[in-house]
Formats: sequence, structure tokens, C-alpha cells
Amino acid sequence: TFHVRRRAQSQLELAASYVSDAQYNRNIHFETSSQAIRLHKIYNHWAAQRVIYLFVLVDLLLALFEEPAVYLLPIWVTLSMELVCLLTFVGRLAHFSKIIPTKVFWRDAKNICLIITIMLTLIDMTVYWAVVITGHDTVRWSRVLRPLFCVNFTESRQLRRAFRNIRHTLPEILSVFVLFMFSVAVFSLMALKLFEKRNLTTDKGAPYFTNYLDIFFELYVLVTTANSPDVMMPAYNVSWGYSIFFIVYIIINTYTFMSVFLAVVYNNYKKHLKNEVRKLVFMKHRKMVEAFNLLKVQHGSEFIILEADWSQLVRIVAPEIPSAHRALLWRVCDEDQKGYVGQEAFIQLADLLNIQVVQMKERIHPLEVRMPSIYTSAVSQFIRRMVKHRGFRYMYDFIIVVNTIFICGDEANPYISEAEWVFLTLYLIEIMLKLYTYEPRVYFAKNQFWNWYDTIIVLAALLGTVINTALKSANGYSNQQILDIVFILRILRTVRIIDSFYRFRILLNTLLNLLPTMLTYAMLTVIVYYTFAIIGMEAFKGRIRFYGSNSSDPAANYCGNPALKGTQFAADGYCKNNFNNIIHSFILLVELTVVNQWHNILFDIKYKKKIWIYFVIFHVVVVIIFINIFIAFVLEAFFVEHSLARSAVETALEKKIQELGMGFYQPDGQLVDVTEMNENYSSIDDTKLETRLKFKIASISESTLLHADPRDPTHKSMQFFNKN
Amino acid sequence: TFHVRRRAQSQLELAASYVSDAQYNRNIHFETSSQAIRLHKIYNHWAAQRVIYLFVLVDLLLALFEEPAVYLLPIWVTLSMELVCLLTFVGRLAHFSKIIPTKVFWRDAKNICLIITIMLTLIDMTVYWAVVITGHDTVRWSRVLRPLFCVNFTESRQLRRAFRNIRHTLPEILSVFVLFMFSVAVFSLMALKLFEKRNLTTDKGAPYFTNYLDIFFELYVLVTTANSPDVMMPAYNVSWGYSIFFIVYIIINTYTFMSVFLAVVYNNYKKHLKNEVRKLVFMKHRKMVEAFNLLKVQHGSEFIILEADWSQLVRIVAPEIPSAHRALLWRVCDEDQKGYVGQEAFIQLADLLNIQVVQMKERIHPLEVRMPSIYTSAVSQFIRRMVKHRGFRYMYDFIIVVNTIFICGDEANPYISEAEWVFLTLYLIEIMLKLYTYEPRVYFAKNQFWNWYDTIIVLAALLGTVINTALKSANGYSNQQILDIVFILRILRTVRIIDSFYRFRILLNTLLNLLPTMLTYAMLTVIVYYTFAIIGMEAFKGRIRFYGSNSSDPAANYCGNPALKGTQFAADGYCKNNFNNIIHSFILLVELTVVNQWHNILFDIKYKKKIWIYFVIFHVVVVIIFINIFIAFVLEAFFVEHSLARSAVETALEKKIQELGMGFYQPDGQLVDVTEMNENYSSIDDTKLETRLKFKIASISESTLLHADPRDPTHKSMQFFNKN
Repeated sequence: TFHVRRRAQSQLELAASYVSDAQYNRNIHFETSSQAIRLHKIYNHWAAQRVIYLFVLVDLLLALFEEPAVYLLPIWVTLSMELVCLLTFVGRLAHFSKIIPTKVFWRDAKNICLIITIMLTLIDMTVYWAVVITGHDTVRWSRVLRPLFCVNFTESRQLRRAFRNIRHTLPEILSVFVLFMFSVAVFSLMALKLFEKRNLTTDKGAPYFTNYLDIFFELYVLVTTANSPDVMMPAYNVSWGYSIFFIVYIIINTYTFMSVFLAVVYNNYKKHLKNEVRKLVFMKHRKMVEAFNLLKVQHGSEFIILEADWSQLVRIVAPEIPSAHRALLWRVCDEDQKGYVGQEAFIQLADLLNIQVVQMKERIHPLEVRMPSIYTSAVSQFIRRMVKHRGFRYMYDFIIVVNTIFICGDEANPYISEAEWVFLTLYLIEIMLKLYTYEPRVYFAKNQFWNWYDTIIVLAALLGTVINTALKSANGYSNQQILDIVFILRILRTVRIIDSFYRFRILLNTLLNLLPTMLTYAMLTVIVYYTFAIIGMEAFKGRIRFYGSNSSDPAANYCGNPALKGTQFAADGYCKNNFNNIIHSFILLVELTVVNQWHNILFDIKYKKKIWIYFVIFHVVVVIIFINIFIAFVLEAFFVEHSLARSAVETALEKKIQELGMGFYQPDGQLVDVTEMNENYSSIDDTKLETRLKFKIASISESTLLHADPRDPTHKSMQFFNKN
Repeated sequence: TFHVRRRAQSQLELAASYVSDAQYNRNIHFETSSQAIRLHKIYNHWAAQRVIYLFVLVDLLLALFEEPAVYLLPIWVTLSMELVCLLTFVGRLAHFSKIIPTKVFWRDAKNICLIITIMLTLIDMTVYWAVVITGHDTVRWSRVLRPLFCVNFTESRQLRRAFRNIRHTLPEILSVFVLFMFSVAVFSLMALKLFEKRNLTTDKGAPYFTNYLDIFFELYVLVTTANSPDVMMPAYNVSWGYSIFFIVYIIINTYTFMSVFLAVVYNNYKKHLKNEVRKLVFMKHRKMVEAFNLLKVQHGSEFIILEADWSQLVRIVAPEIPSAHRALLWRVCDEDQKGYVGQEAFIQLADLLNIQVVQMKERIHPLEVRMPSIYTSAVSQFIRRMVKHRGFRYMYDFIIVVNTIFICGDEANPYISEAEWVFLTLYLIEIMLKLYTYEPRVYFAKNQFWNWYDTIIVLAALLGTVINTALKSANGYSNQQILDIVFILRILRTVRIIDSFYRFRILLNTLLNLLPTMLTYAMLTVIVYYTFAIIGMEAFKGRIRFYGSNSSDPAANYCGNPALKGTQFAADGYCKNNFNNIIHSFILLVELTVVNQWHNILFDIKYKKKIWIYFVIFHVVVVIIFINIFIAFVLEAFFVEHSLARSAVETALEKKIQELGMGFYQPDGQLVDVTEMNENYSSIDDTKLETRLKFKIASISESTLLHADPRDPTHKSMQFFNKN
């Protein structure tokens, strides 16, 4: 048996790698030599990943210090920083190449893309350095490629998946876009034929609708509603009949086509997301089967894994799990207590490891452990009953209302600024009382949004107020920035009152459940913004200058660009809407996303065409695709919330699983299906799903009721648990 | 048996009334006396309904001729016109009161509402007449009530249902709206605390963010994006940090909350629509059971209706149906040819009568009937084969492209204006050839959108061109309006090229399927616009004047209102955006719906608050509710289209029925369910459903293949029919 155990040890290591990959949804075809397995483990270590994230971030942030810079650093500093980043990336790639077979490495588009990007960046850096040293000016075009580092490292799976979804959605969007452009073109032709010979002028005296391309441009702007109703006014002033043309145009192009875009994006994004999830489930299943095959022993007619092997495997995969927890996991897998698991039960393991198993015993308050006599005394019990009483909540709701009235008052009044200390104290007392009553780990549970909110806001406000008071007594005046933050914190504190209204709480929870999904999505948006910002800076930097808000320089009236004299841009005081550094660029891009006034913001008479192309691409990518995905997420969140509110939670979940086609591989392994969704499907009902998982596990050992706070958002689901 | 037959005759009349009510989804609890039944029949006659519609329309259109009028008529004319309308309404009500029991009449909120509206209108008319005759000026406030006539007559069921749905949706919208307003209020407070003491000014020199209500107003405007980025610029000019405040605001309020509104409206409107449809199905079922009970005879253990009774009943309900068609209907009901129908089969009748049964025999071309020798000759057959060949279509696609190029050319060129005649002739030849090849009733079938489109556009263009040429040769110059129309028709003709691309055809069909539903919805919008227009006119008329586009009057620069001197409104030349007559008001309301610049359009310094309330109500009703329902319809259309494209048509339909909970009352009467949807559920897949119905009927007699044009949008569904 010695020989068998030794063989099993190396196999255990390999199986552990498979399970770990399945657990984190990695899809790496690593080599099975023991050296490769060791390197694979290091490669996937969280610290190694964090280092790469850090250097990607540094690489992106270099834009702050490069020409056109927010804070200009010497070129050699930024270039050498970038070189360090690139070297790290090369190292990471080299490490990766050691893990997987050479053939696989060179067939992977991600790696090729990274290598090419690194090489191009190096070439660009060299050229740039050489050109700048000779005193000339040139473009650092490789900066546009930086977001590729964000996306193409193996650990950015989520981002890549989201991008892939968008890419798959493109063909259908394209066909709608072509039809939409055709519609705009036809309307432009009509407008040309209607107005060409009329010799109309705009209110600025410019000729109105005489050139096809100008009309096309104006009508495209009208789709974004940015020039409504100005574009219609000259025609409308002649006869109201012409306004029918514009109204029909708006109904068809602004309303119908924009809704169609939403529908197409929504439909396709959801569909492709479903496919991705299916693929992931399949991959995970395959990895687990491989691990199973390594460790299986024959038992009668079936293959099984013995408890000893299973236990050792888990110890290697997740050394941080305490043995009690591991025993619990084993009981979940081996429901019938047979001492071994079959393939079906074994495959669950990857998901079981992902579940944050809540300590299901009623936690004992640390104070009760340390000084039980005091904590269980009559006074202490009275205090705890009082805190749990609804009157306590009402009292603090009242305090919040009074606080709000004080905030609205004038800060200069000494009574009001003194009152702030009273309120701060009251809020601190509330938090402390609650921490006295509830077990701290329960109070600061992951889903206790408002407890976290209260604590962070109150502590930050306390800190701010103390610092401000200290500064004031030291220097005699307040620091404006700290004061600003303190003001905002004070007002944010009062927002908690929403939580006291059931309807608002439900609404807010729905929105809060969206946040995790939105994070991936927000990163995607930042990447797209970054690319557009870099392009914008290289193309349009320095063309518009901002002279400060109270400049007496006459050039300030036309933003230092004579071409802007007399334009709407200058008249509106938009000088700071420029591409002169990355922060300005980002803010400008937000303004373009909001769309209003974009045709004035981008007004640059000489470069109108170039800017138009820039905007149309931006409009399609950000406004038509990204904003619509955002809206689709919110819609989906409400549909799920809605169906959950009406029927039993479980039924809805089961239905949802069926809808997503997730009940496919594991007809009776519901747990796996649910966790699959929980981990991978970037949907909106994570907490809900988690609750169900808790339920599933909780049903094993009987007396395991989680302490349920009535203000806990999962409270309802827990009731459901109790009923069953 | 004589006695039985006589008794049956009066019962037949009553049963026919029930069936008729069920057929048209009427829900009138009429009395069962034979006089009431006769009156009921007259009341529901299409002519009587058309008269009411006409007078409601006249009543609404009176706004064109009343102060502030498009074309002012003397007061006595409009007042007496209105009186005539009111008298008609009274007559209609009196008629209705004769049909239903008095108690029921007075319990019906619709009738009470109508009576009160009529009385109020009469009082207002009298007072107005008296005041005007004494030379004073007063408000005709009862005009706001006119849309009630549109909604409250029994025949406006669709409108009422739509309104009811919206009303049911309101509570949930309200709760989101309160939260949204709370959010705006909190942000306003933050803005006040941040900027109050900064002494900032806007680029117009006005103080920036110093007053809470002004800030609230500005931030509400920002939600509509109308003042982005202007509202941010002063703060942004001081420091880019402040722009974070505005970006967070936009993400939360403009994007998230507006998406939540869409989600809530979508969810609730759909839910309530489903309930309405369920109620309707139930009502229809009840009516049909009542009719059944009147005519049933016992047959063994079950009750049945004999063919003779059934046939007589159908003759009374639908005298226009030819006997062949009636026989067909009977065969559908009596599938097993037993000579009688049970209750289940009888209940289908109401829906069967609604189906436009397509003559399923291959129609014989009228020319073939008249001159068979010529029509079947070799030449004729060659022509027909040619027309059916895809080359014919390609040829005309090419002609359209050439035509487009000519249209883009300069009209003054004689070659180009002559070429127009050539193209017109070519298009006419195309239509005539097609009519020669296809049976006219097939060519002009209801769902042959493009055939109708072609014919109408080409004939109108022909007419316009002829009239224009005639006028030109008579007067020597063209009439500009006719020319405008001819130009537009020419361009519209070229749009048909979309139909040649499969993807675009699919897209367009999806949108076209929406049109019928949208009609009810458009009427609703017009009613809401009308109400707002009347209120707007009474409140704001004459305050802003338009002096013509080339006026030299100095007052033209500030629209005749000194308060507007130096405002953005005057600078933008918005003088015609006023409430000075109903047409201007409607156009203004469209501009407000598009939202952009609304804060400038409604700028009226003295009445800012009043106008703000007006806009916020308008914004909530039209932009938040109506536009979102519109978007919801488009989304729904695409979801249905999408699911139909992927799976078998039938499965999708069945699923849809299940989803809508329509398979509830008639577990095996699928036909009823489907038609219910077809008739009542103002959804989007009417043609699809109709196809299925045809299929159901078609399956009875074998050799009944509808002539399938490859360009026919139902072609695909017909293939499905063939397969089965």
C-alpha cells in the first residue's frame, strides 16, 4: 500500500490543481509535471495577481504624468516607470509559458496580443525618446494600447467575458445601426429637397439646410436631442407644417430606433451571457471529472473516492479551512454517510469550496464570554431588549429628522455648529449600543449594508470634525476641503432614514444587489473611456485653453483659440471642456455620454469632420451599447425582484435556473447549478442565491438558526427557511 | 313545435345580442326585453358609433377656432357647435339609459362622469357667454374636460383600458418618484452646503447655487440632461473635484432612477394588461355561456345546440357572412360532424366570427375568368413567370438605386425632371404587372404592407406630378406645397429597397407589427397633449409673441415681452414656442417631450414657479410614463420576435399563452385562447397569431394552400404550415 499512497500523493497535487481551477473558474491547460503544478500554484497565488493588477494600474495612471499632464514629470521618470511595468508583464508571461505546453502558449490569442503590445510599446518608447531628445515633438501612440494589459492577462477573466459578450452583440447592433443610418440619410435627403431652395437662415444668420452633409450632421445631432428644438426653429418659423417633418423624424429615429437599440442590446447581451455561463459550467464539470478520475477507486460496479483521499485533497486545495468546516463539507457531499462519494457528489466540491459557510451556531457575544455575569445581568438584558425594540429605531429616525433640520440651518450660528457634536455623540452611542447587543460579526455581516454605512459615515465624520477643530484651533481657520467632506458626510448620514420605509428599502436593496455586477461593468467603462481619452488628448490637446475662472486676459473669452471667437462654445464658457489632460478628458467624456450640448462641446470649426467621427464612434460605443447594457441590468434586476416578491423564493429560483438552462448537466444536483449562477452569472440576485445555499447547508444540522435581525435584508428569506 | 320555434326566435335575438357583445368584447348588462334588445342593436351599430366619434372629434377640434385660435370664429359659432355636440352626447346617453336597467345606469361611473362633464360644460358656456357679452374676458376652463368625452363613452373601451392600466401603475411609480425626489433633495442640500459660501457666478454673472429652491430646480433640470454641462461649469472651473459631485448625481439620478422608472412602468403595465385580458376572457366566456343556456337542448346526458339553431343565430349576429363561409364555421365548431355542438365548441363562436377567414382556395385571377384563352396563353404565362422570377425584383431594386441618384441631382436640370416621368412609368408598369400576375385580393391582402405602400405612394406621386404640371402650364409656376409633397413621395418610394434585405425586412416587420397597438396609445397621448395644451393656453397665452421670421419690429428680439430681454429664450429665437394657439401648443409640447432646452423654452422669469409645476407634471406623465410605455412596447415586440425566430412558431405561441395565463379557462380550447390574445391583448404579434388561426382552419379542408408570394411576410409561417 506504500506504493499506492505515494502515487496518490503526486496525483493528489494534480487533482488539487484541477479542483482549484474549477473552483475559481480558471481554464488553464497546465502541464502535469510536478514542477509545472508547483509553478501553477504560485502563478495563481493572490499576491502574484495583486502585483500584476498594481502594475497595470500604475501603467494606466502614467497618463496623469505624461504630456499633456495633470502633474508633469520628466520624461525619463515616466519612461522608466513604464519600462518597469513592461518588465513585470514580461516576467508574468514567461512564468505563464512555463506552466502550459509551448504549443498552447503560442496558440493563445491573449499571449500573442500581450507580446505584440509589449513590443509595440517598447518601439514607441524608443522612438519617442529618440525624437524628444533631439528636441522635436511626437505622438506617444502606444498609450492607446495600455488598456489591453487590463484585459489580456489570464486573471481578468470577468472583463474579457464582458468584452466578448459585447463583441458577440455587435453584428445585430450593426444591422440596426445600418438601418438607422439609412433612415437618417433618407430624412436628410427629404430635408434637402424641402429646404434647399428656401434661402432660410438660422438665428445666427447662417444658411439653413443647404448642404447634404450638414443636414445629415444636424439630423444625427437631433437623434441625440442635443439641438432640439433649435434645428427646427427656422423651418417652423416659416410654417408650422414643416414641424411635422421634424416630429415624424423624432418619433422614428430618436424614440423608435433608440428603443430598438436597447431591445437588441438587452436581448443579445443576455443571450450571450447565458452561453458563457453554460460554457463555464461545462469547463468546471470537465475539470472536476479529471480530478475524480485521478483519485477514483473501484467499489463494486461504480467508481468512488474515499473519505481519506477527499479529506487530503481539500486540505491541499484550501489549507485555510478548519477541520470542523471540512467535516461539514464532507457531510454535505456524503449525504447518506456511506464513507465515500460518487462522481456526482464529488463534482459539487468546487462549488462547496466557494460558499462562504456561515457559522450557523448562534454566536455568543464576546462580552458574554469575557464577563458573563455583567453581560447577562438584568440591566444589561434590559439595555439589549431596549435596543432591539422598535421604539429605539423610531427614536433614531426622529433624531435624524431633527438633525436634517439643523443641517439646513446656517452653519455660522454657534448653536448649530455645537449641535453637531451632540448628534455625532448620539450616533456613536447608537453604534456602540448595537455592537453591545448584537454579536460584532453579525452586526458587520457582509449583507448588513446599513450597519457598514452608519459606522463608516459616523467614524469619518468624527475624524473630519476632529481634524477640522484641531486645525481651526491651531491655524485659526478651517480647511475648506475637510469641511466640504464633513458637510457631505453629515448629509449622507440622514439618508439612512430611507431604510425605515419598507417600499424604499425594497427598492434600494434591488439597486444595491446590482452593485457587484456593476463593478466589472464600471471597469469596462473606465477602459473604454481611457482609450477615448488618450486618443482625444493626442488628437485635440492644447487646442482650447482655460485661463482660470476670473482671468482678465482677452484670450479667455475665446479659450485662446481665435477660431472659437463668437461660437456657442466660447459664449457658454466651456473653455475647461478640453483634452488638455486625462482628468479633463474624462470629465469631457462624461459630458459627451450625457449627450446634451455635445455638438457645442466638440465644436471646433476647423476639425469638425475629424471630431464628428470621434463622437459618432464614442456615441455608438458608450451611449448606444454601454448605457443600454446598464439599463438592461437595471431592468433585469427589477424583473427578478418582482418575480421573487410575488411567489415563493424557491420556486422563482428554480424557474430562473430552468430559464437559464443551467439545470442541464446536473439534473439532480441543484446545489451545483445554483452556485454556478452565484459565481459566474453576473446577474443581480447574488445575495438571494447565497441565502438559498445557506439554507441547503443549514438543513443538515438541525439547531442552526442564524441570528436574524428584523432589519436584516435577508430576514424575509430566513423566514422562508423557518417555515420549511 | 311552432310554439317552441316562436319562443326560440325571441331567444335567438337575445342570444345573438350576447354573442355579438362577446364578439366585440362589449360588457353591457342590457335588459332582456325585446325593445331593449332592438335598441341595443341600434346602439351598437357602427354608424351610431361613428357619429359619436365624429362629434367628439368636432368638439375637440373646436379648440382650433376658439380664442386663442388658429382661425378665429365668432363666439356664437363655436358655442353653438359645442351645444350641438353636447346634445348628441346627451342623446347617446339617453339611448344608453333605455338599454340597461336604471340602477345599473346610475351606478356606472362613466355615465355619472359624462353627465357631470356635460353639465359643467353647459354652465361654463353660459357664464362665458354672459361675461363676454358684457365685454369682459374670462377663462373657458371646461375645455379641459373635453377629452373626457373621448374616454367615457362605452365604445372607447380600448382607451379606457389603457388609461386604467396606467392608473394601476401609478402607485408604484409614485413610490419610486418620492425616492427620486428625496435623492434630488439630498443632493441639493449637499450642493447648497458646498457652494453657498463660495460666491461663484454663472457665465451670465448670476449667483451660482446660493438658494435651495434654485438648486433643486437646476438639479431637476439636470436629470432631464437639459442643462448639462452648463450647470457644472462654474464649479468645475474652480476645481475638477467638484465635477465628481455632478458625475455621481448623473449616475444616480439621470441613469439609475430613469432606468428604474422604465423597469417599474414596464413591469406594472404588462402585469395589469395581463389582468385586463384575463378579465375580458372571463366576461366573454360568461356571455357565451348565457347565450348557450338560452338555446341549449338536452341530448342524452349533455346539453347541446343543434345546427339549425346555431345557423340561425349566426345569420342574425353576422348577416354579412355568406352561407359557404357559415358552413365552414360550422365545420370548425362541429369538428366530428355530429350535427350539434357542445358548450365548449359553442363558446369558440365569438372568436371564430372575429377571424378574417381567408378564402383558402387558390383564388382564380379575374382575368382568367373573363378571358381564359389570353390569360393562359404562352406569352401571358411567360410574363407571369418573369414577374415571379427573382430577377424582376433585382431589376426594380436597381431602378430604385438609379432613381435615388437622380433624386439627389439638381431638380433644375431638365434631364432630371424629365427622368421623373420615366421612373413613374416604370413603377406604374411594375404595379400593373404584379396585379396581372397575382390575384388582386391576394396582392392587396391586409398584411401585404409593401404592396399597399408602393401603390399608394406611386399613385399619389402620379397625382401630385400631374397636378403640378397642370398648374405650371396654366400659371407658369409650381405650387410649392404640392412640390414638397411630390418630393417627399419620390424619396419615400426609394425606401422600399429595405425590403430586399432579409435582416432589415425582419426588423421592419417587427416594428410594423407594433403599429396597431400603438394607435390606441397614440390616441391616449393626443388626449393627454390636448389637456396640457388647453391648460397651457389658458395659463400662458399671449405672453410671448412671434413677429414673423423677418420682422424689423424691435419687439421681435424679445418676443414682445420685455421680461424676456436678454434671456436665452429670446437669444435662441424661440418666439414661436408659445401657447398662442393649439397647434403651437402641441408643437411646444412635443419639444417638451424631447426635453432638450425645456428650461429655456419655458423660461418666463415672472412665472417660473407656475411653469415649473406645469412642466414637472408634464414630465412625469409624458416623459416618465408614456415614453416608457412606448419603450416597453418596443422591447416586448423584440422579445417576442426573438423567441419566435429561434424556436418553432407554435411552441413559442403556446408558451406565450401559458405565460399570459390565458390557457386557464379553456384547457383544450386553444383556438379561443389564441383569438382572445389576438383581439384583446394589445400586444404585437397579431399577424403571427392570425397565421396560426388560419392554420387551424386550414387543417380542416385539405387542398387549401394560400398562394404564397416569396415576398409575402407570412411566407415563413406558411412553410411551417406545409411541413405539418
